Amino acid sequence: MTPMTQPIDVQVREVGMRDGLQSIQAIMATADKQAWCRTEHAAGVAEIEVCSLVPPRLLPQFGDAAEVVAFALQQPGLTVSALIPNLKGAERGIALGVHKMNYAMSVSEGHNQANVRRSVADSVADFGRIVERLRQVPEASRPRLAGGLATAFGCSIEGRVAEDRVVELALRLAELGADEVVVADTVGYGNPAAVRRVFRRVKRELGALPLGAHFHDTRGLGLANVLAALDAGVDRFDSSLGGFGGCPYAPGATGNIATDGLVFLLQSMGLETGIDLARLLPVVGWLKGKLPGVDFPSAIAIAGLPKNFVPAGGPTLQEAV
Amino acid sequence: MTPMTQPIDVQVREVGMRDGLQSIQAIMATADKQAWCRTEHAAGVAEIEVCSLVPPRLLPQFGDAAEVVAFALQQPGLTVSALIPNLKGAERGIALGVHKMNYAMSVSEGHNQANVRRSVADSVADFGRIVERLRQVPEASRPRLAGGLATAFGCSIEGRVAEDRVVELALRLAELGADEVVVADTVGYGNPAAVRRVFRRVKRELGALPLGAHFHDTRGLGLANVLAALDAGVDRFDSSLGGFGGCPYAPGATGNIATDGLVFLLQSMGLETGIDLARLLPVVGWLKGKLPGVDFPSAIAIAGLPKNFVPAGGPTLQEAV
Repeated sequence: MTPMTQPIDVQVREVGMRDGLQSIQAIMATADKQAWCRTEHAAGVAEIEVCSLVPPRLLPQFGDAAEVVAFALQQPGLTVSALIPNLKGAERGIALGVHKMNYAMSVSEGHNQANVRRSVADSVADFGRIVERLRQVPEASRPRLAGGLATAFGCSIEGRVAEDRVVELALRLAELGADEVVVADTVGYGNPAAVRRVFRRVKRELGALPLGAHFHDTRGLGLANVLAALDAGVDRFDSSLGGFGGCPYAPGATGNIATDGLVFLLQSMGLETGIDLARLLPVVGWLKGKLPGVDFPSAIAIAGLPKNFVPAGGPTLQEAV
Repeated sequence: MTPMTQPIDVQVREVGMRDGLQSIQAIMATADKQAWCRTEHAAGVAEIEVCSLVPPRLLPQFGDAAEVVAFALQQPGLTVSALIPNLKGAERGIALGVHKMNYAMSVSEGHNQANVRRSVADSVADFGRIVERLRQVPEASRPRLAGGLATAFGCSIEGRVAEDRVVELALRLAELGADEVVVADTVGYGNPAAVRRVFRRVKRELGALPLGAHFHDTRGLGLANVLAALDAGVDRFDSSLGGFGGCPYAPGATGNIATDGLVFLLQSMGLETGIDLARLLPVVGWLKGKLPGVDFPSAIAIAGLPKNFVPAGGPTLQEAV
């Protein structure tokens, strides 16, 4: 692969291989996961969350995590990340040699109990232990650690979530040693006004520490929320190819924002993502064929690119990839 | 009906009875159109475009325009509007006694030819004749006249549309005597950056003249475009209940933004629309039952209101409507 020719304005991180796949019953074949990873990376996606490092008896979908991670690590220039719910997951991530670990905890007690079976305070304490553990890893091979805050804009179990609590927990994870904080609207309860408020406040607290956003499009506001987060200075977003996915512990929470929809939004606004949409859309078509019966709501994948579309910086990977 | 108890921040105008119905083959029964009009108005929607005043041989869907308009005019406080493509349509609108006429023309020559079968210059000239004709109508019964500019963000026939041309035509319609200008993304080619630019420029030219936005969600950016238009100071939007609809002369242009999605966006941001979403959503369910086989993509109608939802000003119509 040749290096990208344009500076990136906004990072788009694929999470469909984790967030999408964990929500469906059918186990995707390892070779298909690898092909997905390879072709999406070839379209310019520079970071992919390839699995969740949880016991296979809890999520059989990720029983092949080792093979998928090993394959992904062979893709030149790809940042390979994995979701971890606890220190045990971190140990596996270190052993597998992932570049980045996305720690998952929820702002609301009810969702944290349902998702990772412990209190928010226990999740925070475990995050601190993971940071300590990572300090023992030689710096050259040490995975980066992102702290993710789920249900930050409301919880399908508890309802309202206090914005003060989101800001407080984001700061806490930063103080403990997160390399990045990700604020997540796990169940599609966010709106652009709340998104602007919360991300502005969190950004003020975090200073230069990277701040990411993770939106679901459950109630149709996903891309409007992206626009609001951009206004608040957020420059990295999680998304799922074709918009499939959800959370098995949050009823009704179907679908991350679509990677292709997100890239279309950003590029059409003149923001460079390093992704070639004309190469990405066929990957959506391929994925639909591999997951029959799964809903892919992405509108751009259905309607296709407009005739007046000009990608922000043109294709950024040379054709000879 | 009792008067609304809250001042309105943003006007939401239902256009599904025209823009939605014109895109489907099945002719909806007159009694169903009337029931739709009545129940959506009872949920707080204060303006409904109930038909297109074109010859029934072109659009048989609107063969019952006279009965639908007559019924709608009986709903106390409802602003009854109709689309008109030319002076002949205006004559019918005046005869039927509609409150408002939405004149349709396109910024791109190709779409204007396909849609109203004449040049843009001829459409502008006809708009001037309609203004003259309306001056002969006694002021008390004179319909207001909105000038609509379709394909303002790109055209599925011609591709790119010059922003200068949109601004120029908006100003021309205002100078000729429009009571309002509506800028429309007929085919879902718009993006938030272009929307902010164009609406800011048009607003600067129009001054205090009302400026509306009409978005389609064909490529998933509809509500992000609403957010951008709000930033530019736009305070009135067209939408279609459940998000069904399109334009029969613009291939692939499926679906206005959903009225229920638009109201959810606005109310969740604390903006008052006068609409009771809890009363509006059941009307979507009813409409789905009346139009089997028609796609209703509205996410909020599928997922339902979040547990943390608080309407901007609470229900604004008393329960005893």
